[in-house]
Amino acid sequence: MATYKLYGRGESGNTYKVALMLNLCELDWAPEFVDFFDPETKSRFRSAVNQMGEIPVLEFGSERLTQSGVILTYLSALTGRFGGKNEEERLEILRWLLFDNHRFSSFYATLRMRVGLKGEVESPVTEFLRMQANAAFVDVERHLDGRSYVVGDRPTIADISMAGYIYFDEKTGIDLATYPRISAWASRISRLPGWAHPYDLMPRAMGLERQ
Amino acid sequence: MATYKLYGRGESGNTYKVALMLNLCELDWAPEFVDFFDPETKSRFRSAVNQMGEIPVLEFGSERLTQSGVILTYLSALTGRFGGKNEEERLEILRWLLFDNHRFSSFYATLRMRVGLKGEVESPVTEFLRMQANAAFVDVERHLDGRSYVVGDRPTIADISMAGYIYFDEKTGIDLATYPRISAWASRISRLPGWAHPYDLMPRAMGLERQ
Repeated sequence: MATYKLYGRGESGNTYKVALMLNLCELDWAPEFVDFFDPETKSRFRSAVNQMGEIPVLEFGSERLTQSGVILTYLSALTGRFGGKNEEERLEILRWLLFDNHRFSSFYATLRMRVGLKGEVESPVTEFLRMQANAAFVDVERHLDGRSYVVGDRPTIADISMAGYIYFDEKTGIDLATYPRISAWASRISRLPGWAHPYDLMPRAMGLERQ
Repeated sequence: MATYKLYGRGESGNTYKVALMLNLCELDWAPEFVDFFDPETKSRFRSAVNQMGEIPVLEFGSERLTQSGVILTYLSALTGRFGGKNEEERLEILRWLLFDNHRFSSFYATLRMRVGLKGEVESPVTEFLRMQANAAFVDVERHLDGRSYVVGDRPTIADISMAGYIYFDEKTGIDLATYPRISAWASRISRLPGWAHPYDLMPRAMGLERQ
C-alpha cells in the first residue's frame, strides 16, 4: 500500500495540485477515486472522509489533510522542496496561494466545470465567471513579466497551486494563447522532472477520451 | 505618524480583517482612505501602491504587504497573538484562511457589493452568488457545532478573517438569523477587547449613514 492516499478524480484541478506535488517530490502515493457525479458516493464520502465534501484529501498514517494549499504547505515543509528560502518568500508564496484560491483557480474551475465539462449553454453566470477568470489571468500575465516563476527564481508551491487547471483541454471560451507569458510559464512547469498531465495521474469520472 | 498605515475603506470587509487585527493587538495604526469608486484614484493607487489594484495594503517602514491572509499571518507571528499553538493548529488556521478566501468571504462580499451597496436588481448572477455564499455558510454553521471559535478554544486569525463581512448591515438576501451558531460566534468575537464595527474603524466611500 502506498504511503500517501490521495482522494480525488482526474477532472479535479484542485486534486491535481497535490498529485503534481507528490509526483514532483517522488513520494510514494496512489490516487483514490471519488466520483462526485454519483450522489451516493458523495454522501458516503462526506460522512466517512471529509464533512465538507471536498476533494482533495490526503491520507497518511492516521492523518487526513484537506485544502490543496494546506497540503502543499505541509508537503513542502516535510520534504524541504518547493518552499520559500526565507520568511519574506514564504509570505509571498502564501500571497499567491490565497490569490489562486480567491481569484485564479476558483472562477476558472467553475467556468470549466459548467461550460467545458457539463456543456452548459452561455448565460449571465458563465459570462460573469469568464469575466472574473480573465481579470485574474490579466493579473498573472502582468506579474510574469520578466519572471520565470511566480515567486523567486525557481518553482515553488505557488506555481504548483496555480498550475492546477492550466493543462486541461476543455473549451472554456478563454484561449491560453492570448496570455503568452502564462503559456510559456505553463510549458516551463511541464518540463520539470516528474510532471504529468492530470488525466495521466488520476482516474476520470466522466469517461471522455482525452482530446 | 502611525507605525502602520492601512490602505482601504470602510466598505471593504477584506480591509476590516486587518483593521480588526491591528485594533485587537493594540498596534499603532491609521487608516489611509482609498476611494475605488473614483476611477482616477484607482488608477493612481495601482501605479503607486499595489499593481493588482486591491485593498488592503499594510505599509510600515519601507515594507508593504498585500492580501489580508498574508497580513494577518505576519501580524500574528510578530505579536505572538491569535496564532496556532503548534504546527497542527497553524495548518488548521491556514485551512480556514484559504476556505474564507475561496468560498466564505468571497462570494458573500461580491453579493453584498452588488445587491447591498450598489442596489443591483436580482439576476441569475446574484442568485448564483447567494447560492454559493449560502453553501459556505452551511459548512461554517456545521463546523461551529460545539465550538466557540473556528480553531481550538480561543480566537485566532481564522476567526478574524472569517468575521470580515459578518457585521455589515446591508441587505443581501441572506439572513444571519438563519445561522444561529454563526450569529453567536459573531457576537462572541464582537465582545473581544478592542473590537469595533468596520464603519467605526475606517472612513466610508459611499457616504451612507450607518443603519
